[in-house]
Amino acid sequence: MSELSVKGFRFAGLRAGIKKREGLDLGLIVADEPVPAAALFTTNRVKAAPVLLGEKRLKGGMAQAVLVNSGCANACTGKPGVKAAEASTASVARALGIKPALVLPSSTGVIGQLLPAEKVATAAPALVGALRADAVDEFSRAIITTDKGPKVSVRNVKLGKVMVRVLGIAKGAGMIHPNMATTLCFVCTDAKVPAKVLERALREAAETTFNSISVDGDTSTNDTLLCLASGQAGNAALKKSGREYAAFVGALEEVLGELGAMIVADGEGAEHLVTFQVTGARNDGEAKKAAACIATSALVKTALHGKDPNWGRILAAAGRSGAVFDPDRADIHVGDVAIVKKGLAIGAEAEKRAHEIMVTPKYEITVKLGSGKGRAKYLTCDLGTEYVKVNADYRS
Amino acid sequence: MSELSVKGFRFAGLRAGIKKREGLDLGLIVADEPVPAAALFTTNRVKAAPVLLGEKRLKGGMAQAVLVNSGCANACTGKPGVKAAEASTASVARALGIKPALVLPSSTGVIGQLLPAEKVATAAPALVGALRADAVDEFSRAIITTDKGPKVSVRNVKLGKVMVRVLGIAKGAGMIHPNMATTLCFVCTDAKVPAKVLERALREAAETTFNSISVDGDTSTNDTLLCLASGQAGNAALKKSGREYAAFVGALEEVLGELGAMIVADGEGAEHLVTFQVTGARNDGEAKKAAACIATSALVKTALHGKDPNWGRILAAAGRSGAVFDPDRADIHVGDVAIVKKGLAIGAEAEKRAHEIMVTPKYEITVKLGSGKGRAKYLTCDLGTEYVKVNADYRS
Repeated sequence: MSELSVKGFRFAGLRAGIKKREGLDLGLIVADEPVPAAALFTTNRVKAAPVLLGEKRLKGGMAQAVLVNSGCANACTGKPGVKAAEASTASVARALGIKPALVLPSSTGVIGQLLPAEKVATAAPALVGALRADAVDEFSRAIITTDKGPKVSVRNVKLGKVMVRVLGIAKGAGMIHPNMATTLCFVCTDAKVPAKVLERALREAAETTFNSISVDGDTSTNDTLLCLASGQAGNAALKKSGREYAAFVGALEEVLGELGAMIVADGEGAEHLVTFQVTGARNDGEAKKAAACIATSALVKTALHGKDPNWGRILAAAGRSGAVFDPDRADIHVGDVAIVKKGLAIGAEAEKRAHEIMVTPKYEITVKLGSGKGRAKYLTCDLGTEYVKVNADYRS
Repeated sequence: MSELSVKGFRFAGLRAGIKKREGLDLGLIVADEPVPAAALFTTNRVKAAPVLLGEKRLKGGMAQAVLVNSGCANACTGKPGVKAAEASTASVARALGIKPALVLPSSTGVIGQLLPAEKVATAAPALVGALRADAVDEFSRAIITTDKGPKVSVRNVKLGKVMVRVLGIAKGAGMIHPNMATTLCFVCTDAKVPAKVLERALREAAETTFNSISVDGDTSTNDTLLCLASGQAGNAALKKSGREYAAFVGALEEVLGELGAMIVADGEGAEHLVTFQVTGARNDGEAKKAAACIATSALVKTALHGKDPNWGRILAAAGRSGAVFDPDRADIHVGDVAIVKKGLAIGAEAEKRAHEIMVTPKYEITVKLGSGKGRAKYLTCDLGTEYVKVNADYRS
């Protein structure tokens, strides 16, 4: 149990009755005092009320608590939505005896429904009373929606001679795209990191992880990646570069990478976790475009579901991605099996062996464009009928 | 039957054994002599062999025949693919007694498989022997793949005092996007139209029709929209502007619009044909971006399948489209029922009435962004489990 704690933070999760379904739906993280905080919010033009309020409150780079509910996104709810977010965080601030401006709100669930602030107000004293250093599990269960289960990842890393911890807790079932289902991720660390450095590190670590399961700008109304740093580990304040900075970013990347993989694997109805690796693009940007286009193509994803090494669809998706390459120089491998060499099929035998790999729950497909040194990875999952069922009936 | 013919053209369709499944798979259109021709081909970087050869042969703006097969896309087949397209068109040219350069090839079906040119060669004499002015039906059946049925549209229009005819024949089941399944469309007209004017008219008519069921650049390896003009109606050669030009473009738009709607309605497993109309964008370009983003969102399309007026998903899709607008000024109507006013839900009663409309096979959803005069339409269909089944198993 002591694994799941990080110095300077307490957690709680309980049922406030916001979710229609059974289960916990209100979570809280509280730092012992106001601490440096940084966040990446959705780039969607339609931002949920908690995002609007969170952006405002984070301007000073300090926060002490994060209040998260599931079951209601409080998005597309206008001024009443912002008022509900303010009222909810005020209830919790009152119960904690701190300023409301130090409480960041976060919501996930159905869009267009107003957060029932009165339910949060009623639950606030019990929520605060339930705060414990080792209640990460309760918190992680309180923030999920269509997820198969809670998602937690921890890493320890030495900064100089001091061991610090990075603990991440996420929700999201990124079936077709994380824009489909809201992705929320909360990271707590006991490292001492100034807010500006924290934001830089978060942005850097997100680029190769969360932003490689989602196309830039293609996010939900509520997506939030938030990090708080209690500083209780006792390291010297982290600088914005150097070996210790790199080590911290590395730990952050591992935590976000693990959580990102959990989100994709948890995709609604998904049975296969597939990494598309694109190499040989003219540059990394074009490689990422191609990888994203392949990994989010519904035709490619249904082929993954059918365990069908349908490389024509992969090549066609790369072809419309905007990446410049010569199809006649492209190679494709499923795991270690080459199925396309210089734009042409290798044959039925190779595809049969590729199919054997595609039966497994986790594998990699490499697309070599043969036009340069650019490379990128993109994580995805298959698209099965279960996804349609889950999303056609979500509100009912 | 005389409805389905157009002066100066003969048609044929038969089974050459290219398709695994039963059914016709080889079609031919032949003009009485070389005639002006224009085409819009896929913008995908990966172009199928018939597209590469067709682009080359169309440079002079003249053609006499179009040879189309279903069951094999002859895409991603490299030089052997181009050779197969050349050999096939040569067999047919020989049987017709014309130059191979006057025969345009077109293919649709599985990507990565080489066109069996020998099957086309064997079938060529019978194909040419079957040519008839009223065999549009046979041709239209020979070019389909996962389509529920053939797609033909005809319009007559007066150019000056002369009545001309525009006849279009298409295939495609544009479930998630036309990039998913190849769209082929062949238009024959007896109007006298120089090749340059024909291309201009085709491009203009496609913009509001075929390009509003597909995002620019987001096309399959084989997509082709081709038009031949026999000139046998006897009108004065069409000029590139003026009343007659507008009338011709209008007829072309009606034909392409009707075929486009058939393609969307024919979407694999689709039960609802839905037009998204976006108004009040800053300009038409942003309106089209928003409409396209909404109409191709898997979350929106699964909600359509569930007959769920899930306006939050619609607004969120508009929000990530790149269109600039204030969500607090957005209205949404399903048919004539307002469900969102100034960014806020109108209520359960309105959504219940919207649901009643969404039960029907064909309706319109209007999204008013309230930020300008830009407008655009985009046609789409719902995303059901049938789509996944069809596409997961397509090759097997």
